[in-house]
Amino acid sequence: MNNRKLRAGMIGGGIGAFIGPVHRMALELDNNAELVGGAFSRDPEKSQASAARLYLDPRRVYHDYRVMAEREAKLPEDRRLDFVVVVTPNSAHFEIARTFLEHGFHVVCEKPVALSLEEAKTLRKTAAKERRLFMITHAYTGYPMVKQAKQMIKNGELGDILKVVVEYFQGWVPFRLHGAAKGDKAWKFDPKVSGSSLTMADIGIHAENLAHYVTDLEIGELCAEATSFLAGGGLEDDAAVLIRYRGGARGVLSVSQTLTGEHNGLTIRVYGTKKSLFWKQEQPETLLVRDLNRFDTTLHKGGPDLYEEANAAKRLPSGHPDGLIAAFANLYRAFFQAIWRQLRGEEDSRGDYPNIDDGVRGMAFVETVLESAASDIKWIKPKV
Amino acid sequence: MNNRKLRAGMIGGGIGAFIGPVHRMALELDNNAELVGGAFSRDPEKSQASAARLYLDPRRVYHDYRVMAEREAKLPEDRRLDFVVVVTPNSAHFEIARTFLEHGFHVVCEKPVALSLEEAKTLRKTAAKERRLFMITHAYTGYPMVKQAKQMIKNGELGDILKVVVEYFQGWVPFRLHGAAKGDKAWKFDPKVSGSSLTMADIGIHAENLAHYVTDLEIGELCAEATSFLAGGGLEDDAAVLIRYRGGARGVLSVSQTLTGEHNGLTIRVYGTKKSLFWKQEQPETLLVRDLNRFDTTLHKGGPDLYEEANAAKRLPSGHPDGLIAAFANLYRAFFQAIWRQLRGEEDSRGDYPNIDDGVRGMAFVETVLESAASDIKWIKPKV
Amino acid sequence: MNNRKLRAGMIGGGIGAFIGPVHRMALELDNNAELVGGAFSRDPEKSQASAARLYLDPRRVYHDYRVMAEREAKLPEDRRLDFVVVVTPNSAHFEIARTFLEHGFHVVCEKPVALSLEEAKTLRKTAAKERRLFMITHAYTGYPMVKQAKQMIKNGELGDILKVVVEYFQGWVPFRLHGAAKGDKAWKFDPKVSGSSLTMADIGIHAENLAHYVTDLEIGELCAEATSFLAGGGLEDDAAVLIRYRGGARGVLSVSQTLTGEHNGLTIRVYGTKKSLFWKQEQPETLLVRDLNRFDTTLHKGGPDLYEEANAAKRLPSGHPDGLIAAFANLYRAFFQAIWRQLRGEEDSRGDYPNIDDGVRGMAFVETVLESAASDIKWIKPKV
Amino acid sequence: MNNRKLRAGMIGGGIGAFIGPVHRMALELDNNAELVGGAFSRDPEKSQASAARLYLDPRRVYHDYRVMAEREAKLPEDRRLDFVVVVTPNSAHFEIARTFLEHGFHVVCEKPVALSLEEAKTLRKTAAKERRLFMITHAYTGYPMVKQAKQMIKNGELGDILKVVVEYFQGWVPFRLHGAAKGDKAWKFDPKVSGSSLTMADIGIHAENLAHYVTDLEIGELCAEATSFLAGGGLEDDAAVLIRYRGGARGVLSVSQTLTGEHNGLTIRVYGTKKSLFWKQEQPETLLVRDLNRFDTTLHKGGPDLYEEANAAKRLPSGHPDGLIAAFANLYRAFFQAIWRQLRGEEDSRGDYPNIDDGVRGMAFVETVLESAASDIKWIKPKV
Repeated sequence: MNNRKLRAGMIGGGIGAFIGPVHRMALELDNNAELVGGAFSRDPEKSQASAARLYLDPRRVYHDYRVMAEREAKLPEDRRLDFVVVVTPNSAHFEIARTFLEHGFHVVCEKPVALSLEEAKTLRKTAAKERRLFMITHAYTGYPMVKQAKQMIKNGELGDILKVVVEYFQGWVPFRLHGAAKGDKAWKFDPKVSGSSLTMADIGIHAENLAHYVTDLEIGELCAEATSFLAGGGLEDDAAVLIRYRGGARGVLSVSQTLTGEHNGLTIRVYGTKKSLFWKQEQPETLLVRDLNRFDTTLHKGGPDLYEEANAAKRLPSGHPDGLIAAFANLYRAFFQAIWRQLRGEEDSRGDYPNIDDGVRGMAFVETVLESAASDIKWIKPKV
Repeated sequence: MNNRKLRAGMIGGGIGAFIGPVHRMALELDNNAELVGGAFSRDPEKSQASAARLYLDPRRVYHDYRVMAEREAKLPEDRRLDFVVVVTPNSAHFEIARTFLEHGFHVVCEKPVALSLEEAKTLRKTAAKERRLFMITHAYTGYPMVKQAKQMIKNGELGDILKVVVEYFQGWVPFRLHGAAKGDKAWKFDPKVSGSSLTMADIGIHAENLAHYVTDLEIGELCAEATSFLAGGGLEDDAAVLIRYRGGARGVLSVSQTLTGEHNGLTIRVYGTKKSLFWKQEQPETLLVRDLNRFDTTLHKGGPDLYEEANAAKRLPSGHPDGLIAAFANLYRAFFQAIWRQLRGEEDSRGDYPNIDDGVRGMAFVETVLESAASDIKWIKPKV
Repeated sequence: MNNRKLRAGMIGGGIGAFIGPVHRMALELDNNAELVGGAFSRDPEKSQASAARLYLDPRRVYHDYRVMAEREAKLPEDRRLDFVVVVTPNSAHFEIARTFLEHGFHVVCEKPVALSLEEAKTLRKTAAKERRLFMITHAYTGYPMVKQAKQMIKNGELGDILKVVVEYFQGWVPFRLHGAAKGDKAWKFDPKVSGSSLTMADIGIHAENLAHYVTDLEIGELCAEATSFLAGGGLEDDAAVLIRYRGGARGVLSVSQTLTGEHNGLTIRVYGTKKSLFWKQEQPETLLVRDLNRFDTTLHKGGPDLYEEANAAKRLPSGHPDGLIAAFANLYRAFFQAIWRQLRGEEDSRGDYPNIDDGVRGMAFVETVLESAASDIKWIKPKV
Repeated sequence: MNNRKLRAGMIGGGIGAFIGPVHRMALELDNNAELVGGAFSRDPEKSQASAARLYLDPRRVYHDYRVMAEREAKLPEDRRLDFVVVVTPNSAHFEIARTFLEHGFHVVCEKPVALSLEEAKTLRKTAAKERRLFMITHAYTGYPMVKQAKQMIKNGELGDILKVVVEYFQGWVPFRLHGAAKGDKAWKFDPKVSGSSLTMADIGIHAENLAHYVTDLEIGELCAEATSFLAGGGLEDDAAVLIRYRGGARGVLSVSQTLTGEHNGLTIRVYGTKKSLFWKQEQPETLLVRDLNRFDTTLHKGGPDLYEEANAAKRLPSGHPDGLIAAFANLYRAFFQAIWRQLRGEEDSRGDYPNIDDGVRGMAFVETVLESAASDIKWIKPKV
């Protein structure tokens, strides 16, 4: 059986939204799926208006995701949605994802998948029970040079990993509060919508996921600090985590959304006994490799000696920036391949996309960091 | 009347092609157009196989562009193609583009639109006569920060422009001849397919177009050198042009495809009496602005004080790389708006996309450079 | 009374040494002092051979620093040394520095000034008692753009400081153990010579000193991890410190000498509510300033609007790299001015050079970090 | 016979001068020479005041260079100057240099050594006749990574050289005319003092010298444009030169002092059939090497696999910036070695410092460029 074009629905992502359109572009980029319906807003008019811009059939447009799940589930197989994309604010993720899983749909969900570790585990259980696929969009792992980094480490090129330094620095909190553009992202400051964590749940889990994806290291224990500088409401907007990985490597993970002037500064440095790697999301097309004898090599996306996994993830040759939408699309491509495998009745296998296990591990990380940060026992005063 | 989703056809761009898929992704990115048919190869089987990967209706798939033009022209208006995309090797551009113009279709054509200035002028005449729109995809002008640069200059922020330095350096010629990957792009070395110019026609016109787009300067006179280092067949793979712009500014335009280690090194520097600009295609998200008093400012895509034209061209916020496909899509968006204006019966107006005037000016530039390069009168020997 | 050229002696720094010659070049750079004698090695022949290369009078050359101190102290005032420079391995610093202080000489000492906080305090007491000046060469604070950073913060340009991120990453440990050049710096791995700390005492105190110099923040409490990856002997070659500064700012200080491919990667980032700063020792001529509204400004040494303190510290105009020797020389210049003030009988005043207070604070920092790192109470295991 | 410390005199370089102090620091940096006298100004008081800051013996201080040459020539051999350093404005170089050569002194002279090719040739003849050494301070060739570049090319690592792109861009002309700091460098705008060329004579010859030093290529013929944008007086402040090197390589040399925001932007790119090199004076510690297969390698000063010539030119290990003064000092070191060889009666041999042959070649280059620029025959108008 040939692959067929898949049908997608979206919940959230109406006019004015940021991440919804990115998902739509990404899922359609390779022409393997098509958005055919959705509940873009709770407001019926706004939902239809959003859909009209996408030339969607108004009969596939909803304002209540429960109604959407029920009706779409009843459609004949050749019209029914294959999967839904959940791009609402955080607090709605859990219920929507669970509802669609239970109605037989595969689910793509923005991070964090839930507001608590408990909820994330419930989603994992539900997906397993329903045999539905679940993708969480840690899109930065979709970049070609991230895949190159992963393969280099997997193949032992770095020797033993000694240290991992990962940072995710943003500056939108002071910008929204005091800068030229105000008011946007307001829901993120509301614990009822955002959850009990601002920065860790928003970007800390991206940082953790990237480090895990690239190195495959498991955290053995950690020690953390979290601070609420400007966000208010007890929500942390800055955190730093000392990590002891199993096997002896050490890590420093720093995240913040309150660092004036930062844009989307996600970087990872991995140091091994033979080589080290440096990758920077804002300039994702290259990977810096440094070796023991102090030669720095810059690998470029599209270069001839990259790993197959890196080459398969590129859309354009070297020197032609692919961008984040293409990285996003790489996640979708792997997700679609998993759906097609299931449609063909093949054995389940782990595709190269972040799944609900990543979602669970991410929420566990958030809760552990906040617990450690709440403890004052770790501090000592400097000698004089 | 609302805008409607537009229907596209493609000529060339079958399996294994580079630029065809980029066009497909770009034209569909905003969901305002859809590829519905094409002649992807002269080989019927290969054409159908390419189409199948795109889930196209086999009845809209051809292997002879003339047949395609005739049959598609006869389809009812609500099924007929709105425009075609020509992504074949150079030598076929002219005939294909002219044929579709004459059959009533708008045309998007890869550069160079023709093998000679004469042909380019014919296309301009044909498009005007048929009242069809014609886009040539100088896609680098689609980047947000290029639009920012253009607006800064247009609004006089740089003072008087004194100097323009534009470079387009690639290294694929030695790479293909001696490097790890061989054989690809072979047709580019064949003057019958490529035309009488290799590098000027391939990327020299991109460099010229970028400089013209950003500065709006017109070349008054020029003096050029062109060299065939490795390409053979009398085809230049390296050129440098001294330019006197009308109004007194000076320019240096350097292009080469034989520079070992270069990827896609298109850069532009514009120096004015008050400020200067530097932009680099390989890191397109930022624009360096330097002022008289030696403060360097780096503007980021998505920043709050950019010109509206720059902001409208972005898809993602600052720190989230948009990439070249999105830049390409910006050209298509402007092209679609022009089509919709025509469908609504509005007055023709110049949209923000490169059109056949750019195609004509580009071919004139190529021919002038080669003519100047052929003259030895300009050289003098150094004193001793 | 005019300033007169000062006379310097050196202990250590013989043929083959790295830091001794740097001191000699730095102290003589502005022609305000001259090296006239020293004990360059405990081996009399090697000491004389080292001196001969410097065209020194053999009568001022010693192999025993005690003899040197005694004899030089007895010379008439117009020939006697004004100060000595101590550039031996760590374990000898304390005794040598104390001996020369007690014989009436000002002292310049490489870091760490001693092997323990206790010893450092003794030096402070001795210097105060003898009214001798004491400089510790945290030379990185001598760079013009570091002084610019300090002044910007002092003058409130950054608003409230929220976060300080300082890193000092080197890679010589794996390089010496496994790379192309082996054997060098062997004494650093010997706790008897190096002291009980490798990396914190060697470069951790540079990082702490830089952060303190630039921000003037005082550490309130800290929580640290230290690791011995490759160095052996229980000596840490990697450390990370979470810091709570007094007043609410947070810090992350990371240092390592075991990071493959790093050279001398000292960087500091200071984030305030209005602006942030980024400075990098390996490219010291510029300072990146980022503001709330996401404009990045690069300040260049020698630019017209820098603070006077930054301009006074430059030797060459913008675009002409000054280098580390010149930064070193800036410390010496401030030290000489203090000596001249004392010669003129002026009131003691704090010059712009690191003194024994910095030495004491540095050793306190090292000991506090190692104490915190030794405690396991801070770690928690991740939830599952 | 052992080397002895050499004695230097200086002409020009009084209080407020820029380049004089750089020479003093550079010539004394390795402690192999000492400034003992000079004529720092034509004004006796200013000359003595300048000397006093350097603690010089007032009896060795002059205000008339002719008197200085005569008197110093009569001093006994063990007190007499070994060489003089000429750092006056351009127009005085020739007469001063000739005078000191004729009085038996070796000469170090700032560029340009003369105002015309004719004068430069006279200096060459005089130096040869008097058997005196002559150094012109093209100091940028003293950087370690420039020497690495030269050796890589000499040893064939790049394969055949195809193209050389050298730029020297400064922005002080608009800065002085309209920026924050005015008035300085006024003599440079006066043809009587500066000569008939502003930018070519000031920095164009540095660019030519760097390209020649690194590649050893000889110019076969050239075609140039020169422009006077802002400088007035018919003095060019911008130029671009197309070059055909002997043997087939091509070059583009661009220089300007009127490019807003540029500091001291000297860069060189050399492209060969196997590898290419990129070096940038403003970040001189690294050398970018790119190879056919698109791996970019960054070599660092002090790395283990550099050529001996590069390692011998460093003063500090990798990651510790040496700066321009040290590069200058490398020229002096080679010059001193040549003097010592002569003192030992050894055969003359070419040392690794720029000599009067470079001075002659530089002036020939300036005059040829200006002659080519004056010819309008080379320009053609673009086709339409």
